[in-house]
Amino acid sequence: MISLKGAPVAKALNDASRARASRLALKSVEVKLVVVRVGKDDSDTAYLRGISRAAEASGIAVELIELTRRVPQRELNELLGDLSADPAVSGILLLRPLAEGLSEHEAAFAIAPEKDVDAMGERALAQLFSGRSDGFAPATARAVLEILDHYGYDVRGRVGCVLGRSTVVGRPLQALLTSRDATITLCHSKTPRIDEICRGSEFIACAVGVAGFVTPEMVSPGAWVVDVGINVGEDGRLTGDVAPEVAEVAGALTPVPGGVGAVTAATLVAQTVRAAERIAQSGRRAKDE
Amino acid sequence: MISLKGAPVAKALNDASRARASRLALKSVEVKLVVVRVGKDDSDTAYLRGISRAAEASGIAVELIELTRRVPQRELNELLGDLSADPAVSGILLLRPLAEGLSEHEAAFAIAPEKDVDAMGERALAQLFSGRSDGFAPATARAVLEILDHYGYDVRGRVGCVLGRSTVVGRPLQALLTSRDATITLCHSKTPRIDEICRGSEFIACAVGVAGFVTPEMVSPGAWVVDVGINVGEDGRLTGDVAPEVAEVAGALTPVPGGVGAVTAATLVAQTVRAAERIAQSGRRAKDE
Repeated sequence: MISLKGAPVAKALNDASRARASRLALKSVEVKLVVVRVGKDDSDTAYLRGISRAAEASGIAVELIELTRRVPQRELNELLGDLSADPAVSGILLLRPLAEGLSEHEAAFAIAPEKDVDAMGERALAQLFSGRSDGFAPATARAVLEILDHYGYDVRGRVGCVLGRSTVVGRPLQALLTSRDATITLCHSKTPRIDEICRGSEFIACAVGVAGFVTPEMVSPGAWVVDVGINVGEDGRLTGDVAPEVAEVAGALTPVPGGVGAVTAATLVAQTVRAAERIAQSGRRAKDE
Repeated sequence: MISLKGAPVAKALNDASRARASRLALKSVEVKLVVVRVGKDDSDTAYLRGISRAAEASGIAVELIELTRRVPQRELNELLGDLSADPAVSGILLLRPLAEGLSEHEAAFAIAPEKDVDAMGERALAQLFSGRSDGFAPATARAVLEILDHYGYDVRGRVGCVLGRSTVVGRPLQALLTSRDATITLCHSKTPRIDEICRGSEFIACAVGVAGFVTPEMVSPGAWVVDVGINVGEDGRLTGDVAPEVAEVAGALTPVPGGVGAVTAATLVAQTVRAAERIAQSGRRAKDE
């Protein structure tokens, strides 16, 4: 069984980001990601640490803006609007879920599409939906593809399933995989005989947020399994959605921790570098006109 | 076998539209759909006739604007922008595909989201993708749901497949059905063993544009089959994507012609009435503030 460790994938992504950021620096373009966090939430801490590490490894700047949980929507939107207009900012990440009473949907409107590096807004979602490959994707969903690519698994012409239909992981992953010519069954809480659907799949991506949801009986021998779940056990330990015994059946499996989570931050940084490249390009184009 | 005829579905939709349009008329709101056609294409003729009929049956106005195939993109965009700003217009349909050299994507930007009754633009596609049920859907995709609803087929908790991944039918249909709690496998030209996937499905919606693509061997006895294909044979006759012999196996089947096609225009008109209702509502709200 191949252990689809995230670290080498993240390293390759960070190396590539560093090279591209250096090229931008030659043109006096600084790459900067701004992370907006509304209210402190322990579940963000590991991700924030990961983002800092990926940014450092890639040679880009990160700024964390922390707002109180009681920030009014209007103030949040204004901040996002100001960051969108600020030429020093390349990408904006608003940590989700937001505190109660705040609308993600409204906030997403305030983020300029060209800086929407975690694909919260309409432009990014519409592009994902239409299968246009030039847009941003939610970093977690894109990280799954980065892992499969890195380990040489070509989804084209393969039959797989995605478990979970969130706008942050399941749906974008389904869209990305379909655009790569995979045939995907999108499963969710109302899916009957989910074990049969999994057994009929050459690969499985699970993002349901239930520890041990995928059991060995659900996995066809040799199938590739990507575990997007991060669940905190009673003892504080992290576990994924996939039971550890699946390792005895699967052809390949991402560990948790150290799998998708380890690649997500690097993917986010890579998308931020891409945002900076495009903004610089369109700026040059505008100047030429 | 139940023949899922479109006429009664269209009639019910038109009756409901007429009642809602009358209520709007009491508030001096006229409902008007503008259809923009770039270049004459015989394949549009039947659809245009259907739209006229549905509009008449619903008591709403339709205006057809015909542009030459060589209209510059800028001019097309300007027209769509003017229609978007015109308070007398409730909904805008731009017939697709556009003539060569014209970008649908660019044109879609010029259509105001609240008048985008065939779901070409970012707002509608993002809403579809996110599973928000309050947006518009491409009329053909929505028509499939109208038929299933009318004949009492509840997709919730059922396993089905959609054949074809276009942005106009396959992808939106997958999204709509998933939001209705169906479990969908989205199949396309690179799908292996498509016959097996179909046989494992309780219902099938086919939109691939190949006459006779779905054969009886692919259909599980009793399964519901919706044929979205419209193919013109050498003799000029219309046939769907589903072979006629499927009627001997399926539990229910839409005829072609007289199935989905007959409902699409009524669905478009219904979405136009909804657009008019919302525009009137938000106008009142703006006045009140």
